[in-house]
Amino acid sequence: MSSEAKIEARANGQAANEAKIPRTERGRKTLRKLLDASAIEFGEKGFHEASVSSITRRAGVALGSFYTYFDSKDALFRALVADMSATVKSSARAALSEDMNALEIERAALAAFLDFAREHKEIYRIIDEAEFVDPQSYRTHYKTIGERIQARLKSAGESGEFRADLGEIEAWAIMGMNVFVGLRYAVWGDNDTGQNHSSQDIAHVVNRLLSEGVMRK
Amino acid sequence: MSSEAKIEARANGQAANEAKIPRTERGRKTLRKLLDASAIEFGEKGFHEASVSSITRRAGVALGSFYTYFDSKDALFRALVADMSATVKSSARAALSEDMNALEIERAALAAFLDFAREHKEIYRIIDEAEFVDPQSYRTHYKTIGERIQARLKSAGESGEFRADLGEIEAWAIMGMNVFVGLRYAVWGDNDTGQNHSSQDIAHVVNRLLSEGVMRK
Repeated sequence: MSSEAKIEARANGQAANEAKIPRTERGRKTLRKLLDASAIEFGEKGFHEASVSSITRRAGVALGSFYTYFDSKDALFRALVADMSATVKSSARAALSEDMNALEIERAALAAFLDFAREHKEIYRIIDEAEFVDPQSYRTHYKTIGERIQARLKSAGESGEFRADLGEIEAWAIMGMNVFVGLRYAVWGDNDTGQNHSSQDIAHVVNRLLSEGVMRK
Repeated sequence: MSSEAKIEARANGQAANEAKIPRTERGRKTLRKLLDASAIEFGEKGFHEASVSSITRRAGVALGSFYTYFDSKDALFRALVADMSATVKSSARAALSEDMNALEIERAALAAFLDFAREHKEIYRIIDEAEFVDPQSYRTHYKTIGERIQARLKSAGESGEFRADLGEIEAWAIMGMNVFVGLRYAVWGDNDTGQNHSSQDIAHVVNRLLSEGVMRK
């Protein structure tokens, strides 16, 4: 396996992007505008208060053309959750390079996710609201990320870097670590304590927990 | 510090129970019935569809007496989140004993939480809905648990069992691990894979991640 394929295998998993991809470049741009505008609208107002007309207005797209891309507000929401899953995945992958070992990959993926969440705080509200609006999308989002982490653990177990017995439970534990430090530091911010933690600092501390555990040596 | 006080200090933190405590035993029982009935109602229907009249019916309490205890459905919801925080805390503490070391305390606290979540799956939906219905309760719930874990890490650092440099970031990472394995195995269950993980098994695996980390030795 080439190094790139190795990183791919580690970073990948099975993300399913449910957004319909239009055939023309213009159509793809319009779809992108609708997804970006809906992230802001759903993030600010929540699903129930959000409206298709307000989303098309934000996107600068004619109301009528909305239905070329989506059957309903529900369909747009589902596509947005799938799109966010894909964006989380690609932003993490963009931070990885061929010379990284398995531990560095975990650190870089977390730092990239924290940077992404700082820039797109609405992702938490939208994914969390999916639990109520579209439970299947919510499950798929976390199952997909969990599978991706589990694939990385397996690959690192096979290469001899990590323990060979790491599986789904550890993958979900690592996902939970990442999601919760993201909630605390990227979304809520550091205002309570006056401390300022960079994404790199946080990723370093969490990575040390992964590499060393908690015990006094 | 006595062993009991040590466990207390480790397990405690600063949970604020916002439910008003009535003065009579009968009043306390009625309040308890309302909280238990509201957990089922909010868990099944969600906050917006839930109604005070349905909650009092479930509780076997007269509609009029509801307002002796709560000013509104919102106030009941806030009290329920605080009550659930307190119940999570006390169920974890009940699983601890004086002879446990710091690592065993983390394992036992997680196993107890997983058992609790299996019995009260509605807790996830209610806490998660608090993000939208009452963001302050949502933050307080996780801040309180995070502070409790951080206090345990500090105590174990001082006793020399854990690294002395564990702080808030590690506390939030551990909380995230626990919440996510709870979501995956206690709430969703094991049906996808056909595997069956007991709370003890899961707590053991997560505990090994804490004690050893992921590296191949």
